[in-house]
Amino acid sequence: MAEHLSQSELDYPFKLLEYFNGFRVSKVIFSACELGVFDLLLQSQKPLKAGEVARELGTSEDGMERLLDVLVGIEILEVEHTEGTAHYSSTDVSNLYLAKASPKSLHDMIIYNSQTIYPLWNNLVDAVREGKNQNEKTFGLSSEDIFSAIYRSEEEMLKFMGLMNSTWAIDGHDIVTAFNLSGFKSMVDLGGCSGALARELAREYPSSTVTVLDLPKVVQTAKQHFTESGCTVEFQEGDFFEGDLPPADLYILARIIHDWKKDKCEKLLKKIHSSTSPGGGVLIVEAMLFESRRGPITAQLYSLNMLVQTEGKEHPPSHYTHMLTQAGFRDVQVCRTGKSYDAVLAIK
Amino acid sequence: MAEHLSQSELDYPFKLLEYFNGFRVSKVIFSACELGVFDLLLQSQKPLKAGEVARELGTSEDGMERLLDVLVGIEILEVEHTEGTAHYSSTDVSNLYLAKASPKSLHDMIIYNSQTIYPLWNNLVDAVREGKNQNEKTFGLSSEDIFSAIYRSEEEMLKFMGLMNSTWAIDGHDIVTAFNLSGFKSMVDLGGCSGALARELAREYPSSTVTVLDLPKVVQTAKQHFTESGCTVEFQEGDFFEGDLPPADLYILARIIHDWKKDKCEKLLKKIHSSTSPGGGVLIVEAMLFESRRGPITAQLYSLNMLVQTEGKEHPPSHYTHMLTQAGFRDVQVCRTGKSYDAVLAIK
Repeated sequence: MAEHLSQSELDYPFKLLEYFNGFRVSKVIFSACELGVFDLLLQSQKPLKAGEVARELGTSEDGMERLLDVLVGIEILEVEHTEGTAHYSSTDVSNLYLAKASPKSLHDMIIYNSQTIYPLWNNLVDAVREGKNQNEKTFGLSSEDIFSAIYRSEEEMLKFMGLMNSTWAIDGHDIVTAFNLSGFKSMVDLGGCSGALARELAREYPSSTVTVLDLPKVVQTAKQHFTESGCTVEFQEGDFFEGDLPPADLYILARIIHDWKKDKCEKLLKKIHSSTSPGGGVLIVEAMLFESRRGPITAQLYSLNMLVQTEGKEHPPSHYTHMLTQAGFRDVQVCRTGKSYDAVLAIK
Repeated sequence: MAEHLSQSELDYPFKLLEYFNGFRVSKVIFSACELGVFDLLLQSQKPLKAGEVARELGTSEDGMERLLDVLVGIEILEVEHTEGTAHYSSTDVSNLYLAKASPKSLHDMIIYNSQTIYPLWNNLVDAVREGKNQNEKTFGLSSEDIFSAIYRSEEEMLKFMGLMNSTWAIDGHDIVTAFNLSGFKSMVDLGGCSGALARELAREYPSSTVTVLDLPKVVQTAKQHFTESGCTVEFQEGDFFEGDLPPADLYILARIIHDWKKDKCEKLLKKIHSSTSPGGGVLIVEAMLFESRRGPITAQLYSLNMLVQTEGKEHPPSHYTHMLTQAGFRDVQVCRTGKSYDAVLAIK
């Protein structure tokens, strides 16, 4: 029998009610981010009154005060009272993760979650009922070609790339150091999007070449919006489902397998196997389920997210081992980071 | 300086990411409730496979399996593995609070949160910017008359009444016993909705008469859908803002003050003061803010909820004391229950 919620819930459902309020807490943080609250409080040299924040950001004072108070309640902001008036200030946590200018900013992750994923999840009942994504019901887009839905406009593509980019700002280093990859002299990140994970690889393995392969419009947008000066990462336009892959010692599939149906994943892994030489490898990066089905909650939620938005799902390690072995790979190693994303390395 | 999120967040933002996933966790529970998962697992005499649950409830097996797995992850359901297949079962907590038939069921609270409040909160940025509710943007309804928006259809009125009703299923007893009210021989619950709190009063104070006053259509719906056999609560049709109030020793305002602008609240409290005799009283029931602005998070979130949906807000005790004293009441006593709702009693 599984452990479950504390018996004290039977007296009063504190934890359940907290779960019911989860969407409100998410939206409070998301909205404060969208309104620029964390940027203003970082830039301000002193604590600000609700009225001052409201004036600077063009909002109502009453609404802003209530928003700030929740952020104090969940300990993301601080408040002090001077002459009976509340003055709000940022915290180390809000400055590091919620202000836009921070190198570890989750701003873009928040924007995508708030503006794209939150409305998609309003159709979770239908996603479970139908067993398919809700791009059509939510945004009026065909549910068949998932990336034409995800990239339905330049704005949406930029937001999605921002989401990917901010993930690797916090998880990238753990992923590229999950295994010693220094033996792989050429690395190609398939569907490498903004290039954020590739940049982490290039920093950690300076004697390897790192190339991002992605769709032409993604590569163009990456070059325009996400490059960093002095970075050695190369970009190549292409579609990893079509034609040949650029040759490499190591192929990276970071958050790729979870987007697609099983047959496409199998085909892709076989193609990677053909493209690399013996000793070459593939690194799969995903939020990995436990075999027991008891977690991690993040991976379980992401698997439902994949249902709502794509045609894929998250898997436990045994599924990756099976897929990789079927494609001809050997020596499958799994590294759980204990954070959001995990890594699997396999060798030809 | 306020305490704030643990310094370990600076290494990795576990808690922040949990907050970002809050909306997903809410929607998982809400959707399982809407699909009837908790009812089926309560009724089932044995653990069920995902495929069996899916078949019974007319959903995809894949979607249902992912949904069930999250519910296991957050410890609301249990899983056991027999011959390599997962079998899911309910827990005491899901049976008590999430199955529809339980006397403490939060089913109706969930339905309203999922179908009405979740989409409203997608417009939180605009609510904060404009300082007003989002009924118009979300549902195309006038934002001026809040209860014509809330009661925009029979279905919506029934859902809203269900929300109120399920609140008092878990909070009612604490509220009616927050003070010894046995000295008040006649009680009128103004805007008493489904009558759930009134029934708790009638049970606790059998020698008092208890009457619910609410709008005609609400009273009719309450009589049709929410009455219990043997209950002595009377219903009276009326509008507490219009005309005289029925005479009473105690008036109850449970989740009423938080709906309305200050001037309407003041007018209502003065009317109550005129309607009762010396020694009579008023009991205000709300989720009460701390004076410090540091919580409770529930009350702070509800105050933003009032912004998004009504013209009112939540208050700290000092505001209620001020309003009540201004209206002519004395001996204001505040009782915090430590749960979602608190009580304030004042005497004429």
